[in-house]
Amino acid sequence: MPEPIVFGFPQSTYVRTVRLTCVEKGIPYSLEPLGFSSDRLADLHPFGRIPAFRHGDVSLYETTAICRYIDAAFAGPPLLPPGAGGQARTEQWISVINAYVDPPVIRDIVVERLTRPLQGQPVDEAKCTAAIPRAAHALGVIDTALTGQAFLGGDGVSLADFFLLPIIYYFRQLPEGIEMLPRLPHLEFWYERMRNRPSFAATAPPPPGER
Amino acid sequence: MPEPIVFGFPQSTYVRTVRLTCVEKGIPYSLEPLGFSSDRLADLHPFGRIPAFRHGDVSLYETTAICRYIDAAFAGPPLLPPGAGGQARTEQWISVINAYVDPPVIRDIVVERLTRPLQGQPVDEAKCTAAIPRAAHALGVIDTALTGQAFLGGDGVSLADFFLLPIIYYFRQLPEGIEMLPRLPHLEFWYERMRNRPSFAATAPPPPGER
Repeated sequence: MPEPIVFGFPQSTYVRTVRLTCVEKGIPYSLEPLGFSSDRLADLHPFGRIPAFRHGDVSLYETTAICRYIDAAFAGPPLLPPGAGGQARTEQWISVINAYVDPPVIRDIVVERLTRPLQGQPVDEAKCTAAIPRAAHALGVIDTALTGQAFLGGDGVSLADFFLLPIIYYFRQLPEGIEMLPRLPHLEFWYERMRNRPSFAATAPPPPGER
Repeated sequence: MPEPIVFGFPQSTYVRTVRLTCVEKGIPYSLEPLGFSSDRLADLHPFGRIPAFRHGDVSLYETTAICRYIDAAFAGPPLLPPGAGGQARTEQWISVINAYVDPPVIRDIVVERLTRPLQGQPVDEAKCTAAIPRAAHALGVIDTALTGQAFLGGDGVSLADFFLLPIIYYFRQLPEGIEMLPRLPHLEFWYERMRNRPSFAATAPPPPGER
């Protein structure tokens, strides 16, 4: 069986989630850079998003599906906690990150401040400001969840942590994150734990806009 | 252990997804009707959505997490296919339904045509019209996936089918669905199979707006 291929550009938070999963699982993989407008992507993902994924004759898209596949198909440390309750709780956090953290933090604030200038477009300050309360509420819920446990899934690292890490990585570089994150101490401690793991450096993205 | 409680109103597509999962798993449950503005919901779900769920000391929200819990925690027919590839593919379809089918079909068309009038608001016809190409593309991808297989997860019914069924149920009552769905024959055959299952009648929602 050939090694898995992750398709997408390394600045994407969801591409980094898949790469973190590969590294933490201890499997070799290759990253094939693909932009949103490539014809190749249209063949791999009918909705034109990244990442896409291939492992032998298994082709997948959507990050939750790809990460679960990697966790289940390869030997290596399990990336979901044991038991129906713990696994469902982890799934809940992944869903919370996708539905309530990613939209205000990435789609509103990070895209405005990091992507728009590269496209020669002005930053929509009103959009950033409007996103702050939603970002604060969602990250506050996560901060509370991290009271008394090291990782989102419990005592051990899990897929949920790999969904959150790439988002916080960008957010802490921006004024809204620099203001908000120090008031979320459990999330801050979690970030320290995460960035000391070898997978953090192994998946560090190049600056936005760099090929 | 007491029987599980599903919180939310029965007209919600996601509440029906959880109820379909319970019925197909063969477990008794109770439905506790809760509207979006109830104080009780604020305690159960920090983002104020439905459904929420409780089983003994396990409290969960987010439909994907709840359905996976039900499938894993109870005896009864497995509601995910065997094997890492088949499970990931099922997860991919759930993600596709949540990310690309629900927004144009439910949030844009169904909410406009069925919910707005109950709130005394006019239907935003432009919003409905703008949603049609996105709905057609997403349902076309699903129609293609159903070529040569009976259900989204393969030969057997799975959680992915329970995410799609409540959406199609409403869509086929509305002009956009009446126009679009006959051109998607594999999806039509799938719907016939699904609506002949006892879980369909056991979870039939009351008319919108009825308590």
